Amino acid sequence: MTENEKKYIYADNAATTRMSQTAIDAMLPYMSEIFGNPSSLYTIGQKAKEALEEAREIVAAQLNASPKEIFFTSGGSEADNQAIRSAAIIGSKKGKKHIISTKFEHHAVLHTLAKLEKEGYEVTLLDVGSKGIVDPEAVRNAIREDTALVTIMYANNEIGTIQPIPQIGKICREKGVIFHTDAVQAAGHLHIDVKEQNIDMLSISAHKFHGPKGCGILFSKTGIPLSNLIEGGAQERGKRGGTENIPGIRGMAAALKEACENIDKNAAHLIPLRDKLIAGLDEIPYSELNGDRTNRLPSNVNFCFEGIEGESLLLLLDDKGISASSGSACTSGSLDPSHVLLAIGRPHEVAHGSLRLSLGEDTTEEEVDYMIRAVKDVVTYLRNMSPFWRDLTEGKRPHVFAE
Amino acid sequence: MTENEKKYIYADNAATTRMSQTAIDAMLPYMSEIFGNPSSLYTIGQKAKEALEEAREIVAAQLNASPKEIFFTSGGSEADNQAIRSAAIIGSKKGKKHIISTKFEHHAVLHTLAKLEKEGYEVTLLDVGSKGIVDPEAVRNAIREDTALVTIMYANNEIGTIQPIPQIGKICREKGVIFHTDAVQAAGHLHIDVKEQNIDMLSISAHKFHGPKGCGILFSKTGIPLSNLIEGGAQERGKRGGTENIPGIRGMAAALKEACENIDKNAAHLIPLRDKLIAGLDEIPYSELNGDRTNRLPSNVNFCFEGIEGESLLLLLDDKGISASSGSACTSGSLDPSHVLLAIGRPHEVAHGSLRLSLGEDTTEEEVDYMIRAVKDVVTYLRNMSPFWRDLTEGKRPHVFAE
Repeated sequence: MTENEKKYIYADNAATTRMSQTAIDAMLPYMSEIFGNPSSLYTIGQKAKEALEEAREIVAAQLNASPKEIFFTSGGSEADNQAIRSAAIIGSKKGKKHIISTKFEHHAVLHTLAKLEKEGYEVTLLDVGSKGIVDPEAVRNAIREDTALVTIMYANNEIGTIQPIPQIGKICREKGVIFHTDAVQAAGHLHIDVKEQNIDMLSISAHKFHGPKGCGILFSKTGIPLSNLIEGGAQERGKRGGTENIPGIRGMAAALKEACENIDKNAAHLIPLRDKLIAGLDEIPYSELNGDRTNRLPSNVNFCFEGIEGESLLLLLDDKGISASSGSACTSGSLDPSHVLLAIGRPHEVAHGSLRLSLGEDTTEEEVDYMIRAVKDVVTYLRNMSPFWRDLTEGKRPHVFAE
Repeated sequence: MTENEKKYIYADNAATTRMSQTAIDAMLPYMSEIFGNPSSLYTIGQKAKEALEEAREIVAAQLNASPKEIFFTSGGSEADNQAIRSAAIIGSKKGKKHIISTKFEHHAVLHTLAKLEKEGYEVTLLDVGSKGIVDPEAVRNAIREDTALVTIMYANNEIGTIQPIPQIGKICREKGVIFHTDAVQAAGHLHIDVKEQNIDMLSISAHKFHGPKGCGILFSKTGIPLSNLIEGGAQERGKRGGTENIPGIRGMAAALKEACENIDKNAAHLIPLRDKLIAGLDEIPYSELNGDRTNRLPSNVNFCFEGIEGESLLLLLDDKGISASSGSACTSGSLDPSHVLLAIGRPHEVAHGSLRLSLGEDTTEEEVDYMIRAVKDVVTYLRNMSPFWRDLTEGKRPHVFAE
């Protein structure tokens, strides 16, 4: 492939994924033929009800949960909000109003916690270290008599680092504290077993594993009562009002099953590609990988480049046919540097020059080679235009990274 | 058509509708080709963003609203919850903690109000009279200095009665009170003009007008700040976290446009069918129409039959190929009689024997004739088996309705 050749490479699978044909095919019958309201008594409603409960069984099986522990939501953000608020209410009833989380959670978690702080809860946000991995012992040390909840993400959405969930789960179970994990980036990509990993509550978003947008899952262990975020009808055992989105739920269940069945196969394909991409970008002077080198999602590559403005980098890569991100899609448009990169200790000036490339199951080695060349070219081009970079090369400013 | 002929008649369009081909066709491209995250900078993300904003313009145009007043939600229930909670927070900041609503709202409204009562708000639920129509003067009389919100549905989901929304809107505007209407049953079926009708906030659900499930709209007038129900990313101008469900939103916008363009045509088709169905069922002795005879949705027929158990009626009608409902799908499974029928003064014993038939644009006169015969047969059959009915006919119990 020459660089003049126009290519389309989607490398932002952490932001969203293309729906799989499996998921689309699973949705379509419930849009037209079996469109009934599952709360209805008649045949077409009961068929929809059966489809709903079958989807619940499929989802539960992928997580080693029980179907009655699965609640369908409109996405990962809603699931995060409902999980955290429910656990806060449970804690409050016992006089426990302390919550532990980390500095690099998704905003669905951090903003919910900020709201709870205003309502009188106390929140401890743990450091995540320079590698972007939470220390389970730090969780143990932070737990107090009045701790209601520990909420720590399964894998970070920007830098892809995988957290020691089984160890944290074990500590929380020993201490009798509810443990919630935002598994939006992990579900369908890593092996999740809520029983073995001592997870009490877990959030999932369908569109991160080739399922439909607007669909999510909240797992809540038996014995942990949910509070409604959305009041209304008796749907989801009274815990989530609103007519169930059966097409979406069927599409999500099918996509999750397909993804879970292929976790090892996909990882075997992706890890060498990820590592090749990391090695290639490592050759760019004054750059550094963000997050641990190996303990990260098979799909995730995230770099900081000195002297680069992230937005320009993305626009020029788009020009070369590469869809990439500077970090979280949810905060784009914001001029603030990523809170995740600040949490791992990146200074403001390099946190602005970040690039996340998140690969998909269909990414090829040829595409990785093309991305390495393209990023190198664009970084060189942008640096040559940058007064900031000239200051660095002329020694007027100190470098942050080694050459 | 003979009665032995197996027929399939869907007469529960108030519960949910079959998606139109227009809506499905509008969704599909955004599932596969243009699947990008609209928060992303690259081309495929920006195309999704354009699609999102175009959908917002389409929706706004149908309501005579401005696009920036349109917020996409996961459905009518979420929209109701967010509207009411936002208005309550606005009121609370001004020391206004009184809310006016009615006794026959949807549970998404009533349960949210019940929660607010526990949080220290005071709620006045207005009577709806025997015809199921709120008196605007009762609204005027209920408004106090500390009234934060009036929330009254546009059309009732069980008995289909259309409320005097323009009159109520005018009174609220004069009094400076926020006016929200749950328009889930009205949107796409009645002419809504938020400016002319003085509506401040309005909720819509897509699957009630042949759009997708899991999609809704919250209109909130400029100057009425929303509070987040779902915290998270910066989507929907920071008022609703979660990656936007672009396929669903496109499907919803297309369905709403199609429905709004055909309101008069559909009404002209439906009203004679509705009235023929009402006249036919009126012939059944000891039965009565629920709700006003003419000031009701073109699609809605709702009857109470003495000496009948609603669930048996529905199952036998299903056997005859008719999908019908006893009232709200959202409360099915509950043994309590409908709060809507109690609100219009039906005694418990007849509220249990209710039947809602909600017609669709494709309902034919032949189907109406078939439904009349089927309901007559089933009511006669069930009454002949019922000890309760025997007591009535033998004069051991008094009749509620005239013969």
